[in-house]
Amino acid sequence: MTHLIMAVNSGSSSLKFELFSMPEEITLAKGLFERLGTGSAAFTLRAGAGKQQANVALDNHQQAAEHLLDTLLQSGIVASLAQIDGVGHRVAHGGEFFKDSAVIDDAALDEIERLGALAPIHNPVNARGIRAFQRRLPHAVAVGVFDTSFHQTINEAGYLYPLPYRYYQDYGIRRYGFHGTSHKYVAEACAGLLGRRDLRIISCHLGNGASVCAIDGGRSVATSMGFTPLAGLMMGTRCGDIDPSILPFISEHDHKSAQQLLEIMNNASGLLGVSGISNDCRDIVSAAESGNHRAALALAMFTDRIRAVIGAYATVMDGVDVVIFTAGIGENSAGIRREVCRNLGFLGIRLDDNKNKRHATFIQQEGAPVMVTVIPTNEELMIARDVMRVGLAPTQEVQHVG
Amino acid sequence: MTHLIMAVNSGSSSLKFELFSMPEEITLAKGLFERLGTGSAAFTLRAGAGKQQANVALDNHQQAAEHLLDTLLQSGIVASLAQIDGVGHRVAHGGEFFKDSAVIDDAALDEIERLGALAPIHNPVNARGIRAFQRRLPHAVAVGVFDTSFHQTINEAGYLYPLPYRYYQDYGIRRYGFHGTSHKYVAEACAGLLGRRDLRIISCHLGNGASVCAIDGGRSVATSMGFTPLAGLMMGTRCGDIDPSILPFISEHDHKSAQQLLEIMNNASGLLGVSGISNDCRDIVSAAESGNHRAALALAMFTDRIRAVIGAYATVMDGVDVVIFTAGIGENSAGIRREVCRNLGFLGIRLDDNKNKRHATFIQQEGAPVMVTVIPTNEELMIARDVMRVGLAPTQEVQHVG
Repeated sequence: MTHLIMAVNSGSSSLKFELFSMPEEITLAKGLFERLGTGSAAFTLRAGAGKQQANVALDNHQQAAEHLLDTLLQSGIVASLAQIDGVGHRVAHGGEFFKDSAVIDDAALDEIERLGALAPIHNPVNARGIRAFQRRLPHAVAVGVFDTSFHQTINEAGYLYPLPYRYYQDYGIRRYGFHGTSHKYVAEACAGLLGRRDLRIISCHLGNGASVCAIDGGRSVATSMGFTPLAGLMMGTRCGDIDPSILPFISEHDHKSAQQLLEIMNNASGLLGVSGISNDCRDIVSAAESGNHRAALALAMFTDRIRAVIGAYATVMDGVDVVIFTAGIGENSAGIRREVCRNLGFLGIRLDDNKNKRHATFIQQEGAPVMVTVIPTNEELMIARDVMRVGLAPTQEVQHVG
Repeated sequence: MTHLIMAVNSGSSSLKFELFSMPEEITLAKGLFERLGTGSAAFTLRAGAGKQQANVALDNHQQAAEHLLDTLLQSGIVASLAQIDGVGHRVAHGGEFFKDSAVIDDAALDEIERLGALAPIHNPVNARGIRAFQRRLPHAVAVGVFDTSFHQTINEAGYLYPLPYRYYQDYGIRRYGFHGTSHKYVAEACAGLLGRRDLRIISCHLGNGASVCAIDGGRSVATSMGFTPLAGLMMGTRCGDIDPSILPFISEHDHKSAQQLLEIMNNASGLLGVSGISNDCRDIVSAAESGNHRAALALAMFTDRIRAVIGAYATVMDGVDVVIFTAGIGENSAGIRREVCRNLGFLGIRLDDNKNKRHATFIQQEGAPVMVTVIPTNEELMIARDVMRVGLAPTQEVQHVG
């Protein structure tokens, strides 16, 4: 039986959506609202070969949801809103409570808001998006798909920090990890491509935000983001891991508040901070090719840190079978992939330059012990699949039995 | 020609020393002063089979140096202070200025004090120790041996942090690394044992402070301590690397100042913070063996982090030829060495349990591609050697020519 499933990703002033026909995994419509609340929101909708763009006066996520659903009706993309059986929502933080995607009832929604203590920018907005669709689609099952829950399989020694233990007990300070939906999607896609699940995978999600995940037999066993998405790799504007003593030092010598330090580490660091040019990897690559020293330095730092994490995660799984590259940089930059894989012969990683340049699915040399693969991520599809699995599967099973 | 060389390590309320006959590398006397400035300092001196212990009223490093030199004369260990040709001083921070050990003239002493901005607890004390010996031994060459200088060969991408570049330019915020004297000593000892210098070494200095260093052909190419000795591994009381966002979070929710955060991360974290028992690895091992969960957890975290750095540093050198264990834990804990080497077969690391238990020099299995070795560190001897090389070698060369 076919279900129409909407995948929703609510940001502070944006709302992305994609409407799927499931389980066929066919996209019926996709698009986004930007600049919500500014008086002139931009709405983009693609369906089939068509594309609509409009500026609309929308103040909030509720109005955006209304506008979207009305447009779907008016355009004839759906005949009735009753056809939409499920809505999947990307939620930033599931804490230790949500170890998997979950049907959102009142208790779950309370928990998502409570976890706003750990994700003050994202969770409240995600909750707003959930409420917006619930009001107009009360018959549809709502499912929360958490950026963190894939990493709940990481063991205690892997998620705890070497701080006084009470910071874990009293404040929930531990590694949560993020990008879980993406790492899970590409790991499942990879297992599907190879027809086996007993794989030791190192997944490199390299976009403006970036993280690496070690996946052993389908389970996350290590990931580079931590208590927050600042941790781990150097990113477009984020510093990743640094000597924590640097914060009190900057605070004292450069007179920065805790809030200003967060701002610097999240928005003025990374590729942007080192290069002084841009947070966009493409800009940095062209500047480096034109001989800009600090751009070349930023790239070397970026790729060295990814390589270091790959080496570290090989020690978690006693080696690696597949390295996956995904997300904006991972899918599109052959140069970054080449630099990440340089000097990793000891791990069995040997790139084929030609396959890499033409972004082939498998880019390792013939006969190399470790497969290296480029897999486009698709978090929206993963969300739609989880709505089916968590929100609609029990019904299906009853039908099968019947 | 034989030289008497004194190696000195000044702490805030202590002074360690060792008097060598060089180049024979024979220890004539060694010992320490503790609790300087408390009205009742403890003085310990060993020479040959003898040992003296006394409580003495000493206010400062100057008085300790006087007392030491008088005792050496009175005990007949030296016939005249003129016999002492050189004094080598351990200095915590050499910044980017001291890329090697250096003869200490007035300019060098000024620079050491200026670098107190980066090492406010240690450099001023080290300078005090230098002055104390200079006053009584004005004829002897003074040489500074810096904890940082061995790591000055790390490349720019390795030493810079992904912060706004001005923090490097304006404040000197970069990775310096520490334990350099120890890592250099064991790497040279290892090269001597194996009769070759073209080795890719990963040196694990595991004491109450702990760091790992990648040494390629005798040069440090990566190390885990950073801007300060807090960074990198989990240690006895230090947290090492953590998500830097945790600091503003604790600051806001647990109302801690920058100074209090440093105190927590340096003195209340690590093995002590997680186990709640002790910062001493031996206590933690026995508690874990008695079934204490948090002790076992602390050990797993401690060894997992060392393993991760070993994997990361293999990516810097495209593999590894030798892993060295040194310092208190590294030399004495077969259990920690076993856990560190677990699951590293992909790197070619295979421990021989029996050799490991009896602390043999080489503890890898017969035929394993990577050598694993236990080498007792000796920073004092390294200091004495550097006094010879940097402070006295030019004179010797003139003598050779004559």
